[in-house]
Amino acid sequence: MHAELGVDIRARAEEPTKSPLLLAISQVIAEGKWVRLEKTTYVDAAGTTRIWETAKRTTRRSTTTADGVGIIAVLKRTLHKDCMVLVKQFRPPLGCHTLEFPAGLIDDNETAEAAALRELKEETGYKGEVVGITPVTCLDPGLSNCTTYIVTVNINGDDPDNLHPSFETQKGQYNMVWWLGPYN
Amino acid sequence: MHAELGVDIRARAEEPTKSPLLLAISQVIAEGKWVRLEKTTYVDAAGTTRIWETAKRTTRRSTTTADGVGIIAVLKRTLHKDCMVLVKQFRPPLGCHTLEFPAGLIDDNETAEAAALRELKEETGYKGEVVGITPVTCLDPGLSNCTTYIVTVNINGDDPDNLHPSFETQKGQYNMVWWLGPYN
Repeated sequence: MHAELGVDIRARAEEPTKSPLLLAISQVIAEGKWVRLEKTTYVDAAGTTRIWETAKRTTRRSTTTADGVGIIAVLKRTLHKDCMVLVKQFRPPLGCHTLEFPAGLIDDNETAEAAALRELKEETGYKGEVVGITPVTCLDPGLSNCTTYIVTVNINGDDPDNLHPSFETQKGQYNMVWWLGPYN
Repeated sequence: MHAELGVDIRARAEEPTKSPLLLAISQVIAEGKWVRLEKTTYVDAAGTTRIWETAKRTTRRSTTTADGVGIIAVLKRTLHKDCMVLVKQFRPPLGCHTLEFPAGLIDDNETAEAAALRELKEETGYKGEVVGITPVTCLDPGLSNCTTYIVTVNINGDDPDNLHPSFETQKGQYNMVWWLGPYN
């Protein structure tokens, strides 16, 4: 973790000398097509048996280390200030529209970088170029095991392919592309 | 949303003229003590009936607009470079330790700012001062309805209360405080 972050990290406390927490039994409470609810019984470092409830995606691929990608995409055009590209879409879990960084799940046998460029193209119409990627990060670690890479992408807005980008309206969600800017 | 973000946001596409997506019936598939799995049947903007599975916390307070807070805390000390304060803790959903910004759920009748200072104190021992707060943000909007405020906090490391901070080891998780720095 130290090397991945590439910064000076210092722990204030010593590593606990007690044995690490022991994961015991994970029991499926209910499983839908896409989401599973689990109850995990475990023994913590103090020796106490505890229960935790967790939501997990049923779709995690065995060939990747994360569920999905989030994409920080910067649109770069001559004589324009750089802009960040966001998508507006309907999100059933929230029951409303959201303004988000483009994002999506990684397909089987797909790299995170390829997933980022594919999702960016699908959701915004833009053809991008990957310029950076984070280590695996968790989204809501008290609730789920879901993980994502944050991929930074540059979009050459002068590229003829990017002058009139068209995007798919996925699953009737009517994605809409927003420019958030200026970025610099 | 425009005003909240305080930046120039321009939509590339027109707002869809079709009627907005219609949320229909949410059915509880399973409910634990802390997490509920729901199946929502809805009609999308194209008129197609669709199903979405959602994880929701059972603990959301009626008096707040978000489940929790995440805290970006900067430790400021004379003759030291500023540092960011992170916590290392065991996360049962992931089955491993994580390095995170301090975070926690908002209590009933508690403001987000008060929750941020309480959680920072509990998890790191530091007494902080709120310097900023985001609008409500979603954590994993394809999976859950969970929302959070991101609260930025300054810690006066020269304050006698912050010279030897002590923190609680919550629920046998053995939080450990890390400094990530230099920040500037």
